[in-house]
Amino acid sequence: MEKKKYISMAVIKRLPKYHRYLRELLRKDVDRISSKELSERIGFTASQIRQDLNNFGDFGQQGYGYNVRELYKQIGIILGLTKDYNTVIIGAGNLGQAIANYSYFKSIGFKLKAIFDRNPKLVGLKIRDVEVVDSDDLEAFLKENEIDLGIICVPKEYAQDICKKLTDNGVSGIWNFAPIDLDVPKDVIVENVNLSESLLTLTCRMNDNLMGNRRKMKNPSQI
Amino acid sequence: MEKKKYISMAVIKRLPKYHRYLRELLRKDVDRISSKELSERIGFTASQIRQDLNNFGDFGQQGYGYNVRELYKQIGIILGLTKDYNTVIIGAGNLGQAIANYSYFKSIGFKLKAIFDRNPKLVGLKIRDVEVVDSDDLEAFLKENEIDLGIICVPKEYAQDICKKLTDNGVSGIWNFAPIDLDVPKDVIVENVNLSESLLTLTCRMNDNLMGNRRKMKNPSQI
Repeated sequence: MEKKKYISMAVIKRLPKYHRYLRELLRKDVDRISSKELSERIGFTASQIRQDLNNFGDFGQQGYGYNVRELYKQIGIILGLTKDYNTVIIGAGNLGQAIANYSYFKSIGFKLKAIFDRNPKLVGLKIRDVEVVDSDDLEAFLKENEIDLGIICVPKEYAQDICKKLTDNGVSGIWNFAPIDLDVPKDVIVENVNLSESLLTLTCRMNDNLMGNRRKMKNPSQI
Repeated sequence: MEKKKYISMAVIKRLPKYHRYLRELLRKDVDRISSKELSERIGFTASQIRQDLNNFGDFGQQGYGYNVRELYKQIGIILGLTKDYNTVIIGAGNLGQAIANYSYFKSIGFKLKAIFDRNPKLVGLKIRDVEVVDSDDLEAFLKENEIDLGIICVPKEYAQDICKKLTDNGVSGIWNFAPIDLDVPKDVIVENVNLSESLLTLTCRMNDNLMGNRRKMKNPSQI
């Protein structure tokens, strides 16, 4: 029986950072890099890097380093960046607009199909050539268009209802900015960006620091 | 010799979530809750909860549950929410404006003192009674005002320069939205919100899911 390959959530969380650093190396025309050099840039230990990258095949040669282009390509495949994602944003407030305007998303294959809002003042507005549509039309739109990804930028009291409409109509990935834990079917993936939790983590660490009681802690990006 | 109390980064990362759920319980006039009931709501195991909360004193009694109000208060102290934080935002684009408008931040003690931007069209604008000031005046402002926290919402190519100005002038906490790893003095705390890394984690997990190759993974919020 073939042993199933297991990539832990901790590794998955580190992959985007590898991808970002490798892209920068490619821009600087670096072909090869050792785990030691990569370690100095990225802040993970060299042994952690070797262990992580071993998950994806044989891109390194002892004493010779990693093939940057191949590794970048392979990590891009694992990150799902070889396909397009039809995307809708729900909530056209500052945050929704910030995301709609973020050119990086377009560059890696996100096709923004529509932005929804219940505010009549925003309906009809164009953000990067994409129109803001009335939220009442969300379900009809989802039935007519194959949408992969929904980005929820509405206040938390509306988030679960919006989420249900999305997942009932075939959306398989939710990027959620509302500070609640969404209830979704098993086969739907949710990634939360909880700004208040991030801010409280910061104040907690500042407080800890200010009290002169600094505790030894791991590099947060490694947790 | 007294043994120094050690709270791991993993526990610190879970505290804001406890704080949020406990606040909701207080709103619903719930006085006591068992680790089992809390577990069902919050999604951590009961034993994890008991272990986490044991770090902060004795708020639970076997068979009787936790005192919600006391626990909420104590976690608030550990999160540093008993003091005010003088704050500046650098970058008054959509993201900076979204953060300036987020009423939750004010409610937990963040005092927004100024917003900076280099765009003359934004300078002079008022967001929630706070004026957008020219970025050229940032250093002078920091020398005249005691600022605890800087929120960086500028494009990545300007982020390190802004960060240095902040930390050279006494800012001890940085909430960074630019997709780079900032170089800061040892006593400065940085909390990154890296939207592109969050999005790539989502696509990676969606991709994994779509390939019918779903791997067993831990609850991401527990990592």
